[in-house]
Parts: sequence; structure tokens; C-alpha cells
Amino acid sequence: MARVTPLSGFPEWLPDGRIVEQHVLDVLRRTFELHGFAGIETRAVEPLDQLLRKGETSKEVYVLRRLHDETDDAAGAASSDRGDKQLGLHFDLTVPFARYVLENAGRLAFPFKRFQIQKVWRGERPQDGRFREFAQADIDVVGAGDLPYHFEVELPLVMAEALGALREIGVPEVRILVNNRKVAEGFYRGLGLDDVEGVLRQVDKLDKIGADAVAALLVAEQGATAEQARACLELAAISGSDATVIDRVRALAVSYGAGTELLETGLAELGALVEAAARRAPGVVVADLKIARGLDYYTGSVYETVLVGHEQLGSICSGGRYDTLASDGKNTYPGVGLSIGVSRLVSRLLSAGLVAATRGVPTAVLVAVLDEESRDRSDAVAAALRARGIPADVAPTAARFGKQIRYADRRGIPFVWFLGATGEDGATGPDQVKDIRSGEQVDADAGAWEPPAADLWPRVVPAAG
Amino acid sequence: MARVTPLSGFPEWLPDGRIVEQHVLDVLRRTFELHGFAGIETRAVEPLDQLLRKGETSKEVYVLRRLHDETDDAAGAASSDRGDKQLGLHFDLTVPFARYVLENAGRLAFPFKRFQIQKVWRGERPQDGRFREFAQADIDVVGAGDLPYHFEVELPLVMAEALGALREIGVPEVRILVNNRKVAEGFYRGLGLDDVEGVLRQVDKLDKIGADAVAALLVAEQGATAEQARACLELAAISGSDATVIDRVRALAVSYGAGTELLETGLAELGALVEAAARRAPGVVVADLKIARGLDYYTGSVYETVLVGHEQLGSICSGGRYDTLASDGKNTYPGVGLSIGVSRLVSRLLSAGLVAATRGVPTAVLVAVLDEESRDRSDAVAAALRARGIPADVAPTAARFGKQIRYADRRGIPFVWFLGATGEDGATGPDQVKDIRSGEQVDADAGAWEPPAADLWPRVVPAAG
Repeated sequence: MARVTPLSGFPEWLPDGRIVEQHVLDVLRRTFELHGFAGIETRAVEPLDQLLRKGETSKEVYVLRRLHDETDDAAGAASSDRGDKQLGLHFDLTVPFARYVLENAGRLAFPFKRFQIQKVWRGERPQDGRFREFAQADIDVVGAGDLPYHFEVELPLVMAEALGALREIGVPEVRILVNNRKVAEGFYRGLGLDDVEGVLRQVDKLDKIGADAVAALLVAEQGATAEQARACLELAAISGSDATVIDRVRALAVSYGAGTELLETGLAELGALVEAAARRAPGVVVADLKIARGLDYYTGSVYETVLVGHEQLGSICSGGRYDTLASDGKNTYPGVGLSIGVSRLVSRLLSAGLVAATRGVPTAVLVAVLDEESRDRSDAVAAALRARGIPADVAPTAARFGKQIRYADRRGIPFVWFLGATGEDGATGPDQVKDIRSGEQVDADAGAWEPPAADLWPRVVPAAG
Repeated sequence: MARVTPLSGFPEWLPDGRIVEQHVLDVLRRTFELHGFAGIETRAVEPLDQLLRKGETSKEVYVLRRLHDETDDAAGAASSDRGDKQLGLHFDLTVPFARYVLENAGRLAFPFKRFQIQKVWRGERPQDGRFREFAQADIDVVGAGDLPYHFEVELPLVMAEALGALREIGVPEVRILVNNRKVAEGFYRGLGLDDVEGVLRQVDKLDKIGADAVAALLVAEQGATAEQARACLELAAISGSDATVIDRVRALAVSYGAGTELLETGLAELGALVEAAARRAPGVVVADLKIARGLDYYTGSVYETVLVGHEQLGSICSGGRYDTLASDGKNTYPGVGLSIGVSRLVSRLLSAGLVAATRGVPTAVLVAVLDEESRDRSDAVAAALRARGIPADVAPTAARFGKQIRYADRRGIPFVWFLGATGEDGATGPDQVKDIRSGEQVDADAGAWEPPAADLWPRVVPAAG
């Protein structure tokens, strides 16, 4: 194995970075479990025809081929002749989850609440600086036939709680931006714009190209009048975190004569969400009428989440309500869910120096080795510590103690344990443990000594820098 | 999305099966961390040329191609023209770890102890009933330049401890079978058989085809005499868990005049391993001179692990010492490691009915909903329970209580919480919580009530059946 070069778009962390990522994953998992979400994993691959159902992402799929088949191809035989379905790596966890629900519908209890934390892959061009492999953490609730609206209120609040639990390690405050597809659709249709998908697609470009350009596109590509385009932009400009936002949308619709029943349904839902959120997680949820979400399967609430002060990073947690993602023709499974882009979040936390691990190894105590003949005694001390839940390692060689202490220091291991010396009379003195940060060294018994709780495991803390 | 059919070779678990798998992973991780192994993850892909360095597995690799490139291919452009390296999914965690070590050598502290728990993929023919995607849990220690022998003793004992920690959920006892490449190589060379790889490859077939067939192959393919073949088989027949096994090998070598210095080195190492293991984990480690391991990079100890009573499952945890897997030409990083086939293990535990989860959801308490108007009160109870670390869910609809209790029962949720009724005088009575298994119902305060510890989280236990 000669020179190695990192692969663009496939992030990897050093051990201390992985401690940060693992901590984030542990906190998310615990929050999801406290809320009763069952953890599942799905296979990494799906049949290609399932992955390509949503045209927009078709260019991003990694297709798999067995090397064996490649060889056959070179010899002229097409792999599709072998009856093997073409497989691709999943690019999100929603499509596999929908498939899992259909496949196991008879064995699941509905509404089914699940969380899923896995890698996904997208064949993005590496020059765009995007990740080609990244971890997502998803929660969804899926009903059989119907799903009460209150889940559209609860799920973003679960995510707010999960992300809020990361505040103590230095993750910035989050703001969840919410909208409702029924509001947009009702308003556009009330205006006389019936290509709702098309209008949403243009409005979704607001942050990238600005209001004037979006207005021009609405006129040029969606056939809107200048007044209709202005109305769309005025709607998109509305945001707020209390019920007055609903009144402002309604007033706008009235001024354009764009009121519809669908708009009213959407406003009632959006109002309920904003109101409940203001009560249960004040300041976190903001109605933002320009949130469109690219994917066409959302039918109600849609969500995006920004880190306050890091808005240019884009949304780190997005999702929405979908009525028909999973359907086997006879039964439909509506759902609502959100997905955290864990790799994007962790990458930002590390690269911006927002968080740090107190050490890069689990080890709290390094047991020194006097000589190879007494390694057994050091092993026994380590075993006694581990049996009481204290992570311990034994020095790899019986080097002089200064070198063994440096071994601990390089890894951030706070304590070094020294075996009691055996005197000429054959009696063994007490063991000692040294806090290598303070230099303090005290007698200690491996069956009783405890490190301070803060030193037991590596912790993730806000970085000084 | 129409009919769905499971993909052969890509296992997925229902939520209660995933609880079993997650528990196994949690126990392994904790054991590895207590021993000071740092957790890392590597990307799922490696350049194809790196994956194909070991000829034997080349047929099993999944090659990735961006769908975009596929389209171009159809138009006649070869994807290799684009300068993108061809990528494949890793088929184990050792090759990626070796690459990670080389790539980050300047930023790691050696000896570097890491654990890694990830999926791997192999493009096996599905009709063989093998997994094409499965989770592995690996531990390795890698040194810079050298690595003391004692790690070859310690690593299998860490795995013995990790697997031993699973005994309480019903995982059968394990037996770790160990051998040493130097013993086999020294013995074969002493016999005059210099194609050591070739002889090992034939001996590795013993369990599949039997001694007579292996002897015939040794004669036919390795050019061994009948006597040499007999000696190889006699060596392979030796096993035992104490130091006498070393004496028996040495006596055999003497009887064939096959003693070599390399053999003596190997016997000293194997003897030290067996002796230390007998002291630290009695009965777990057995020297078995027929253990060969297919991969050619092992240079010292080799390990396989069987579940006692389930030997036909094959090895669930294998590995060995390698001197030259990772090398950048200037520096060499010798290591020793073992890998647990987690999916194979969990699949057996579930299919053989050895273990079970006490429930399929994390939830300990379902908070009933009297009517949608009071859902807020139910939400507040659930929040109070969660704040004290009790997993709680709220009923999805304000159905009659019998239906809400059935909702809990179907999921194995042990407790249902009822809000105190509000009397005509406006006063609210105490909440009550019902153990739906016993039917017992008592007054309870969401700020103080605790479920029994055994009911707090789902547990994994030996199955009754």
C-alpha cells in the first residue's frame, strides 16, 4: 500500500473527532428513545427502480455492480441478463423506510414511530465540496390509512429537544423554520397559479438568486403576471413566531382575492403548530412562508432548521408531512418526519472549533508496567478497575516511567497507576495513582479507588477557541 | 411503490430484533472502551485497486458507479476517462483500517488501539445463503515499527470478555481456537514442504472435505510424500487447552525430524498464549493446530471462535497477527486484531430463538389521552417523565381507554398513565398509573413515580423457547 490520499467527499474523523460524533449520536438516540421511537436499520441498498422514482435525485445515485459481473461485461454479457436486480446505495433514509413499512406492514404496530441513524450516499460531483457519504439521523411517524395532525406539531419539537440537548457541548441554538404546503398551494391557486410545483421550485431559489430573479422566473417560466409574481414574493417574505403571522397571510390573501378553503386549512394547521411550539419550546419555531423544500412528496407541514449564527451552513434538519410516500395500491401510510444531517453538523462543529473532546481515547487510567515479569500484576489492576466500570489500559512496554507517563500524556489519559514496590523483605507496598495534570500522587487500592466523575469517560465540551 | 420483496443476502430486523442487535453492539462497544480502544469509523468505499490487493476476495467486491457515469457510458465515454478513481465497497474493516493508519500515521499515537463497528459488503452469490451486507465489530492494535507479543495474548481475551458479557442474555459459551503461523510454517519447512501457503490452503479444507481428501490433495497438488502428508494431518489433529499441547507438537516434530528454530519460536508464543489464557479466562482458549485462516497476511497467532453447541455456524470471531498489512514503504505497522461477525451472530440468536427483547419499543409508559382538548396535559405528563429519564409516549388518539390500553399491550409497553379526572367543582383528582400486566392501578405523580428498574428500558433476555 503506497501513498494514500483522502477521497474528496468521504469524510473521516480522527479518534477525538469520532468521540464528538459518537456523543452527538448518543444524545440523539437517547432523546428519540425517551420519546418512544423504535430504532431500526435498513440495508444500504435498494433496487434502482425504487431509488429513481423521484426524478430530481436520479443523477446522485451510486449504482452497484459485482466485480464478477464487470468481468462478464467486458466479455460481452450484460449483467441485467442474470436476473439480478440492479441495486443502488440509498441516498436518504426516507425511501428505504417507506419500503420497510410496506414490506413489514403486517408485523408493525401503527402509528409506527421509528428512528434511524445510518450513512447515506450521493454521487455528487466532488468539486462541489459536498459530502458523498454522510450520516443522517431520522425520526418518522407513519400511520396506517391516516395520521393525526398533532404529530406534525410533535416531531419538530422532538428534534428541537434533541438538538437542544447538544447545547451544553457547544452546539449553537437552533431555529426551526416551518411552513405548510397547503398554505402555499391554497394561496397560489387562489391567485390563479395552478402549477404549484413549478411556483414552489422558483420560490425555493430565493436565498440563492434573490427576489427580482425569482419574480422574473415566475413570469418567464410559470406564466405569472407581474402582480401574481409580486404576491408570491410578498407571501414568501412573511415570517414570525406567533399567531399574528397567520393574520398577515390571511390579510395578504384577502388583498389579492386569493383566499381558498385549502389556504384556510393550511393556516389553521400552521397556526396550531406555531402556537403549540411557542408554548412548549419558546423561541425555537418560526413560521417562514418562503420555506418550500425541494421534494415533491410533502403535503402539509414542512421544516428546515438552521444553527443561529451559522445560517450560511443551510438547513441541518429538514422534513415534513407526506401523505402518499408509502402505498401498496391498497393501503396508504401517511407520515411525518425530519432528518438531521449529522455529518454536516459534526463537520461544522469540528472545523469551526466549537466543540472538543477532553481526550481522544476512552482510557481514564494507564497502569504502568515495572518490568515484563510483573506485567501480570499490572493486568490484574486494570482488570479490577474495568470490573468497576473504569476504562483502563496497561502500558505497552516496561519503559522507564517518564516514558510511560508521556504515553498517557500524549493521549490525554489523566491518571497513571503505579504498582506498590516489593521490598527486600518480600512485602509489597501500596499502589499509587498519579494525576499527571496536577502531579498529585496518592496511595490507592484498585478495588476501591474512583476517578472524579468528570474524568471517568472522555467528555465533549465547548471548545475554548 | 408496488409490491416489495426482501433482497436475499441483505438482512433486516424488525424493531424487537434490532433491540437485540443494538444491545449486542452496546455491550461490545462498552467492553472495547473499558479496555481503552478508541472508536473510529472509516468511509464505506476504498479505491478498487486497494481492495483487490488480496486476490482471493477479488470476486466479492461491489464496484460503485455514479448513475451519471452510467449514462455517459451508454453514450460511449468510459468513466475511467474522467479521472475519478474506481471505488468499491469495503469487504472487511481491516483493509480500510490499514489505509486509515497510513493516512493518519503522523496524527495517531502508537501503539494505536482502535475498535470499529460498521457494515461491510460482499458480492456473494445470493443462492449460497450468505450475507451480502453485514455488521462487523473489530478490534486491532497497531504499532509503529514493532508491536510486542503480549498483545497477541490480550486481544483474544478482550473478545472473550466481550462475548462473555453476552452470556447473560443467552449467548452460548464461546471457545476461541488459536494457532500460530510460525508453528505451521516451521513444521512444514522442517518436513521439507516449502510451499507453506499451499499446504495451509489444503489443511484449511479439513472440516469441509475430511482428512483423506486433504492428504490426497497434499500429495497431488503440493507434491508431498505420503509421509509428509501424514505428518501434516497429525499436526492438524493436535488440540488442547494446556501446555501439554506444546509438548505434543514438539514430540511430533522430533519424530519426523521436523524441528526448526521457527517452530520453536512459534511454540513459545503459542505456549505463552495458552498459559496466560488458562489463567485469565479458564476454559475459553484452546490451541487447535488445524486452524489455518485463509488470508495470507497473518504472520503469528491466528484465532477462530465458535459458539459451543453451534459449531456448524462456523467462526463468529476471527483474526490474527499481521506484520506487514500496513506499510508505506518506509514505515511498517504490524498489528493484531479480531473481528466479530455481528450480523451472523445476531441472526443465529434470533433464528434459533436463543434471546428475546422484553418489548419492541423503548417506551415504558403510555400516557392516555382523555380527549383532544386535554392532549396538552398528557403531553406535559410525558415530558415530566422523560425529564427524569423515563421513556414515555402519548396515545395517538383519544380513543376509549380499552383501545388505548390495547395500543400499549400490542407494543409491550408495561404501564398506562391516566390523568386525574376533573370534578364538577373544577378540582382535579390524582393521576393514576396502571401496570397492564397485573392490572394493578395506583395513584401517581409524574414528578416522582418510578417504574421498577427492570421495566425502565427494554431488556434482552434468554428466550423461553
